[in-house]
Amino acid sequence: MKITQSFIPTLREDPGDAVIASHRLMFRAGMLRKLANGLFAYLPLGLRSFRKVEQILREEMDAIGSLEIKPTVVVPGELWKESGRWESMGESLLRVKNRLGNDFVVSPTAEEAFSALVRDELSSYRQLPLSLYQINTKYRDEIRPRYGVMRGREFVMKDAYSFHTDDASLDEHYDAMGRAYRRIFKRCGLTVIPVRADSGAMGGSGSEEFMVESEIGDNTLILCGACAYAANVEKASCKKDYSVPASPGAEAAPAIEKIDTPAVRTIEELCAFLKTGADRFIKTLIYRAANVELDLSGAPGCSGLERRRPAPDAPEVYGEAFFAVLIRGDLDVNEVKLAAALKAAEVTLAQDSDVERLTGAPLGFAGPVGLGSVPVIADETVTALCDAVTGALEKDLHYRHVVYGRDFTPWLVADLRTVKAGDLCPACGGKLYEKRGNELGHIFKLGYKYTRSMGLSYLDENGKSRVPTMGCYGIGVDRTLASVIEEHHDDSGIVWPVTIAPYHVIIIPIKYEGAVKDAADALAGELENLGVETLLDDRDERPGVKFNDADLTGIPFRVVVGGRELSGDVPRVEVKSRAEKNGRLVELSLAAEALSSQVLAEMARINS
Amino acid sequence: MKITQSFIPTLREDPGDAVIASHRLMFRAGMLRKLANGLFAYLPLGLRSFRKVEQILREEMDAIGSLEIKPTVVVPGELWKESGRWESMGESLLRVKNRLGNDFVVSPTAEEAFSALVRDELSSYRQLPLSLYQINTKYRDEIRPRYGVMRGREFVMKDAYSFHTDDASLDEHYDAMGRAYRRIFKRCGLTVIPVRADSGAMGGSGSEEFMVESEIGDNTLILCGACAYAANVEKASCKKDYSVPASPGAEAAPAIEKIDTPAVRTIEELCAFLKTGADRFIKTLIYRAANVELDLSGAPGCSGLERRRPAPDAPEVYGEAFFAVLIRGDLDVNEVKLAAALKAAEVTLAQDSDVERLTGAPLGFAGPVGLGSVPVIADETVTALCDAVTGALEKDLHYRHVVYGRDFTPWLVADLRTVKAGDLCPACGGKLYEKRGNELGHIFKLGYKYTRSMGLSYLDENGKSRVPTMGCYGIGVDRTLASVIEEHHDDSGIVWPVTIAPYHVIIIPIKYEGAVKDAADALAGELENLGVETLLDDRDERPGVKFNDADLTGIPFRVVVGGRELSGDVPRVEVKSRAEKNGRLVELSLAAEALSSQVLAEMARINS
Repeated sequence: MKITQSFIPTLREDPGDAVIASHRLMFRAGMLRKLANGLFAYLPLGLRSFRKVEQILREEMDAIGSLEIKPTVVVPGELWKESGRWESMGESLLRVKNRLGNDFVVSPTAEEAFSALVRDELSSYRQLPLSLYQINTKYRDEIRPRYGVMRGREFVMKDAYSFHTDDASLDEHYDAMGRAYRRIFKRCGLTVIPVRADSGAMGGSGSEEFMVESEIGDNTLILCGACAYAANVEKASCKKDYSVPASPGAEAAPAIEKIDTPAVRTIEELCAFLKTGADRFIKTLIYRAANVELDLSGAPGCSGLERRRPAPDAPEVYGEAFFAVLIRGDLDVNEVKLAAALKAAEVTLAQDSDVERLTGAPLGFAGPVGLGSVPVIADETVTALCDAVTGALEKDLHYRHVVYGRDFTPWLVADLRTVKAGDLCPACGGKLYEKRGNELGHIFKLGYKYTRSMGLSYLDENGKSRVPTMGCYGIGVDRTLASVIEEHHDDSGIVWPVTIAPYHVIIIPIKYEGAVKDAADALAGELENLGVETLLDDRDERPGVKFNDADLTGIPFRVVVGGRELSGDVPRVEVKSRAEKNGRLVELSLAAEALSSQVLAEMARINS
Repeated sequence: MKITQSFIPTLREDPGDAVIASHRLMFRAGMLRKLANGLFAYLPLGLRSFRKVEQILREEMDAIGSLEIKPTVVVPGELWKESGRWESMGESLLRVKNRLGNDFVVSPTAEEAFSALVRDELSSYRQLPLSLYQINTKYRDEIRPRYGVMRGREFVMKDAYSFHTDDASLDEHYDAMGRAYRRIFKRCGLTVIPVRADSGAMGGSGSEEFMVESEIGDNTLILCGACAYAANVEKASCKKDYSVPASPGAEAAPAIEKIDTPAVRTIEELCAFLKTGADRFIKTLIYRAANVELDLSGAPGCSGLERRRPAPDAPEVYGEAFFAVLIRGDLDVNEVKLAAALKAAEVTLAQDSDVERLTGAPLGFAGPVGLGSVPVIADETVTALCDAVTGALEKDLHYRHVVYGRDFTPWLVADLRTVKAGDLCPACGGKLYEKRGNELGHIFKLGYKYTRSMGLSYLDENGKSRVPTMGCYGIGVDRTLASVIEEHHDDSGIVWPVTIAPYHVIIIPIKYEGAVKDAADALAGELENLGVETLLDDRDERPGVKFNDADLTGIPFRVVVGGRELSGDVPRVEVKSRAEKNGRLVELSLAAEALSSQVLAEMARINS
């Protein structure tokens, strides 16, 4: 392809709103333009790379037996009402009413559409397992889209959904997906960090996120310096016995004692007042939980609660319940862990009025000793505290010398802490550190969440009606492409891995005329015949401009045609890879074969 | 691909709502399923054929230098307000408000998005011509979607837009598109009727529609039995001198005379009352026209009208004007022709109250004689009437012996009639006939409609700012695919052209076990290695079921493996093309090569 016959509007300047490399470089290299906030158009160069990511996704999905289909982008709101997400998805769901007043959704994801399709077709266990995918347009009504296509409103996602008779079958496909995802990112030249993640609004159990390190990442990752442990902070755990403060054993502790702490409410104030560390306090937080599945019969303060069944096939839940959550004063409660421990749809800090009603005291004096109005849930770290300070459920009073098990006994103990850099790895005891990360892909075991709410069933070997279990598996195409640039660029521009590069080779004639033109055209023809995707810079520009644009667009191999090298007895051209500083001279007559070999070798290296 | 590893849910019965072959067969062959009214999901088999249509489109667009890009599906409403189509598109435009209250459109077409992109990049004449296309999701909020994907709500369209410095450049690309479109349909195995069409809401001049014959078509086509003349009825013309009724010359006609026609209003009533044919009457219709560009200064009844400029760069128009339109009593006014003659955005029959006000008479007595309140526009056929009957602008009165030019003179004469079967061809005088047709593709010279309203400009060779001219070119992918089935099916199912077939060959083992299984697997492997796309029916079904499904899904070549033929000294298989009644025996060892040659030959034949 000749540059003058394509449309590659490179820019000298960074766009004003671009703060990350991929956003800057996709605009400057003429790959992308903005249609509106969060809405982008891929120009020819960008689309070529985009399609290569799509093709890798397609090949790897096909290889594990997932089947491509194409549902619509606009889907009936009815399906989302069936699953319950019409309500629960919040404002990021782009809802549309058509001319007849019917509700539609511009799909942000497609559990509903795939479940509905399979529901209509599924009759026998013989049809399972069934894995289907699409590579299709999605829309999320981001309130603050930014970073170019890294967080746009419209994007393309590869999303797969699988249906199984049992957990073993789901596990097998989930593992195959995990391996396919690793191959996909490898083939894109990406270093990903696979982390076990909370499955959030998606529900279900068992999931893995594929993260790339990014200073503007949405996620905090907890990584171990000594082993491969990696987790999203939402789910990260750490070694239990870490940093139990030196304290006398329970038997050595003095008797519990009430002390005056006038107008002292926060942990900081308390530390200053008592001249001791925050790790000697039991912090007590009152939480409100919604749709709690955990059985609360017999739990303190719960005798009045009633269970209901939100949908015919769903488990019974308590609509609302309150809990006192204890954690060591220097730590934070991880609400995702808390929700998981309570099997609750959602947990939020209780309102002040609820705190005062349930503790019988003003804010700042909550504590577990004598608290009978709500179940007490303690983080594991609390069990190691043998001489602690905590609120006394009375204005301006705290307890000291509080001993776990002697002065109070929680209703439930669980790992609830938010892990921080410096905590110790739960796997190897190494020191943990933090990174910001962006999620590129996510695989989930959804279980029965959608198949139950949307009424999927099949007849098993014995003719008995059963509900299938389900998995879902997504990768954002745009974000993956942008991440390739994040990982592969330098000060001059993009440095494409050959698998994703829009073209493999760029030919730069010093001046596109006469013998130089003839040689350049002939070489381009030879390369195309060998299957090497070639861009020919036939513009009437200075060589410096062409070199800069070649660096900017990041084509893996550059061939310079012209000058003394070309006009010598043995005509030569300069071949240079984008990643190298210096090129080498190659006989013109051998250049096409040499380049083709290099491209193939590089492909093989990345895909190996 | 083994059938048990794909997802091809064939059906024995037609879906209840399917009335056309493609709708029936896409469902029965397991290509398609319904998500909601007008919203369909392509299953694996359907998607394979869909992608082949897309790929042909891509190749032919690339071949004429159009460049693929990918804007978003959801685009800012602002762009549609700039072009004026936010208002003019009516309810088929799916409008969305996002969480911030901003307007968006789920694109039904993309003149606005492409114009906006080019507007931001265009500076110099050196960048032109520029032709860009996308193959992307579209949405039209059809009030009555039906016939499966033939008239769905969401669909995929290949839409291209080109920008030029002058008409010559636009003409050249338009012609190249016309040739590309002919190749595209040929490669899809489709017989299309290219017709000159009205460009409707798209504006501009010069356009061609590519139609396929269809009993449920949206369009009426006027075709000549003797030559290649073909036109949409909206624009069809016919030989002018056809069927001028035998009437005395103007000089022989008696003087005009008023006659009593009590309570006689319609042409039919008048025919019965006067015992004469409808072709002796001048039918007079009062029309309201909106945004009329034609200069009406000096026209009867128009002195009070004022012109305004709807947009800074647009021509001046009269917002509203009324006209009396005359046509021979047996003919109908073609409103598209009328709008074109008046250079009006829209024409509609006037309301009764306006008719009575402007004619000074009750409904049914309008006529041109003495009518001074509006300009009179006569169809050409009226000029040949030398002794006609028409309304007398008074209750219960008509004129007879009316002579054109003697008793009245119209302000404008134009071709306004709707051509019918039986009229004579304007090109060769042959007899015209009608067909129903469906539009698959459409190419337009848009001119300056969008480039002007959206403010595109470039600097020409002399540094002068100029507005580019524009063309647009669309083909519906879904409708093209459905039309292939409409043209290629029989009572047993689809009969795919090999270019669009989801697979080239289907292998049917009589019973998938033992030596039959081994032979079938080996043959499938050989075929795949030769690049022949092969489906292997490995189901545990009776041969009859497999044969029926092979006919239904329409795979071009069928190979039956098993029985005595396979177990003989020289193992043979039966090879049959879908279109043939009888197969032939081929040595198993030669079968793969033979099939590969047949597939290639068939490809070459269709693409030739």
